[in-house]
Amino acid sequence: MNPRKIVVVGGNAAGAAAAAKAARTDPSATVTLLEAGNFISTGTCELPYVLSGEISDYKKIVFFDEESFRIQKGVKVLTNSPVISLNRRKKEITFVREQKEEILGYDKLILSTGAKSRIPDIPEIIAETDEGRELQNFLPFKTVSNLLRVQEEVYSAKHKRVCIIGSGFIGLELCEAFKKLNFEIMLIEKMDQIFPSGETEAGKIFNELLREMNIRIFTNASKYKFRIKDSRITNLIIDGYDFEVDFVVNATGFIPQNRIALEAGLETGESGALRVNSKLQTSDPNIYAAGDNTENINLITRRPFYFPLATIAQKEGHIAGENATGGNNFMRPVIPAITLKCFDHYLGTVGLNTETAKKHFRNIKSVQTTHRNLVPVMPGSRGQWGKIIYAENGNILGASFIGGKEVSGLADIVSTAIRFSIPVTKLDETDYNYTPALSPFINILSILGRKAKS
Amino acid sequence: MNPRKIVVVGGNAAGAAAAAKAARTDPSATVTLLEAGNFISTGTCELPYVLSGEISDYKKIVFFDEESFRIQKGVKVLTNSPVISLNRRKKEITFVREQKEEILGYDKLILSTGAKSRIPDIPEIIAETDEGRELQNFLPFKTVSNLLRVQEEVYSAKHKRVCIIGSGFIGLELCEAFKKLNFEIMLIEKMDQIFPSGETEAGKIFNELLREMNIRIFTNASKYKFRIKDSRITNLIIDGYDFEVDFVVNATGFIPQNRIALEAGLETGESGALRVNSKLQTSDPNIYAAGDNTENINLITRRPFYFPLATIAQKEGHIAGENATGGNNFMRPVIPAITLKCFDHYLGTVGLNTETAKKHFRNIKSVQTTHRNLVPVMPGSRGQWGKIIYAENGNILGASFIGGKEVSGLADIVSTAIRFSIPVTKLDETDYNYTPALSPFINILSILGRKAKS
Repeated sequence: MNPRKIVVVGGNAAGAAAAAKAARTDPSATVTLLEAGNFISTGTCELPYVLSGEISDYKKIVFFDEESFRIQKGVKVLTNSPVISLNRRKKEITFVREQKEEILGYDKLILSTGAKSRIPDIPEIIAETDEGRELQNFLPFKTVSNLLRVQEEVYSAKHKRVCIIGSGFIGLELCEAFKKLNFEIMLIEKMDQIFPSGETEAGKIFNELLREMNIRIFTNASKYKFRIKDSRITNLIIDGYDFEVDFVVNATGFIPQNRIALEAGLETGESGALRVNSKLQTSDPNIYAAGDNTENINLITRRPFYFPLATIAQKEGHIAGENATGGNNFMRPVIPAITLKCFDHYLGTVGLNTETAKKHFRNIKSVQTTHRNLVPVMPGSRGQWGKIIYAENGNILGASFIGGKEVSGLADIVSTAIRFSIPVTKLDETDYNYTPALSPFINILSILGRKAKS
Repeated sequence: MNPRKIVVVGGNAAGAAAAAKAARTDPSATVTLLEAGNFISTGTCELPYVLSGEISDYKKIVFFDEESFRIQKGVKVLTNSPVISLNRRKKEITFVREQKEEILGYDKLILSTGAKSRIPDIPEIIAETDEGRELQNFLPFKTVSNLLRVQEEVYSAKHKRVCIIGSGFIGLELCEAFKKLNFEIMLIEKMDQIFPSGETEAGKIFNELLREMNIRIFTNASKYKFRIKDSRITNLIIDGYDFEVDFVVNATGFIPQNRIALEAGLETGESGALRVNSKLQTSDPNIYAAGDNTENINLITRRPFYFPLATIAQKEGHIAGENATGGNNFMRPVIPAITLKCFDHYLGTVGLNTETAKKHFRNIKSVQTTHRNLVPVMPGSRGQWGKIIYAENGNILGASFIGGKEVSGLADIVSTAIRFSIPVTKLDETDYNYTPALSPFINILSILGRKAKS
């Protein structure tokens, strides 16, 4: 028997995990990893911390290069090798390397082509793009290459004025990073609140925080314009103001990057992400998908949704890599869980937000409270805010917490409660620990649990 | 009908909660709270932080005085009023106030007389006590009054040398506090390891930590002597050394304080703590007990045990206060959960330790690992150690974690898992959050869960 030929397209969290796992599961297989860009196996969530300088060098978040990945993982890696087409009948892909087209056959293919920045609906930008020009200082923020471009602008900017479009997770993290770099920041949000994917109350807390940091906030920003000169944005015109800007960072979210798969006729869901079964097979059983180009099943709604997150991508990579080499692993439905640091405020979210919950469940309820993360007499004691959304039967649908670092543990407890069907009314039955330096006398989850009971 | 007469004996966490809850549940009742010492409603867990100076003043942990408790809670409070006897037939107690005996009748009595320091088995100390002399500088550490005595010694000590007996939770916290006060510290432990109530591995970690802090550690310390002069300890003689000491703090643990109850014939368990039903009634249905003088039911072993802890005491107080005024609340079996800060190390423990688990379960298993609390590239990333003990069927029996502040959340997740029967092999099914500033890419509980599976 010939050795199994596994090809993985896309070399970030999912792709690197898939290739490494495939090579480990079937050491006799030939595993090839193709990456369109310069880097494989990079830390995406860490990008804001390299920008701010807390992580001193981008090289620290590039965990492998072609050579080290080959030696340590037994995978042949080709960077700068964009795949341009997929022939499912012949089981071949065509990619470009050093300006030449090459063809590679596969027994099993794993598509982990990831996501790309959504382009906001700004006529000037669309017009430029349509005319084939690239706006030199309108920058996405998703890859190490993107980061290096932003850093170029940071180091060359004379006036240090940045416009950030989008106040979601990345937008808020970027606010902190650019503030550390002493930038003047204009933050544009088309929705009526900061942090629109979260609870209204959380949006208000972040709004206040950003104002305290002297960040100019424009919510409900549907009508704004950029002045463009020589393919560079020079000014933001909004609300009757005219601000000079050095560059613009696009943090309006991500969409799946699935051109090759679509052209080859693979099925996608509403989000445009690839539809997969629990083994992560696409509609072609010889093709697996993993990572930010792939749909997930939401454990709470039991429906497909799009959730581009590094930890999920890596899990999927693992599973796809194992299954592509004859394994029989499966991906569990996912509970969305994202945390965030913005200045000294930490946010932990898990499950659905109120708006999404309303779409899927009737008569949703919620409890919320403010508390202290340590007893008031302890130095460092500070406020916490917490909200839990639940169904009529007490099943928890989602939660948000803002406070100190303890929000991480709180969100994880709620994630566990959702996963194992612990109703909100039982959250006060856990014996939570107490010691003055670590925890409050009564845990906020006890208070919320009791509130839900009464 | 005459108003209900409720008497509460002992005014700390349990007693104050009981009295306040009774007055709130039945506003027509006469509720009297008697306290032998100077203070009611104090923070016990906070004592080490007042000693170290992190909390600037002991008054900050005295949350009420007689007057404010009366006004805010509707409870008559008498401090410096030790109860000397209980007449169950007459439903009366006798107490001393301003050197005169007084009698008070009750309809329902709540005993929350708390705990006192265990006296270690040291002949010199027992001899002095037997001869009716009190060793002036052999000091317990349980109450605000104890703290004030220790502080007197701290401020009068010329050479600043303290001997701490016992390396449990309080002993370790005192090591940090005295180090902050620039003391030379001798730590005596009669067992063969530091932190004997914990896992061997945890003991080793703390042993190393204390050595780094230049604390002299004597484990297996069965043979040591104190030199005594004028009712003061002046020297510690151990292992052939002779150390001068300014004073000795006794941190050998606590025993229930139940003289009155015992003399009145109330039933106790093996620990000497009062036996209660789930409504917190003692063997006399008109007498409730709550707090550190009371037995608990351990959820894991389903057997009574002694667990003197402020949060549990306060819960019990609440329930006893409600039930004594006609309520119908009950106390759930308890999962022990204690956390601790010692220098920059945080410990979270929950459930049974290996030794106790072995006494109650056959064929116990365990998994342990070391991990990082943040991805290595993040500033502040540090080591974590975690161990989970479980039964053959996967039921979690206990866990310990040492690391940064995140151990609090980890312990609480395990406490939730024990409470709701989530087996160790399912801990990797939770979607734990990840963000570089807060959490590692893979949660240590996922790793431990996977280890238990394989």
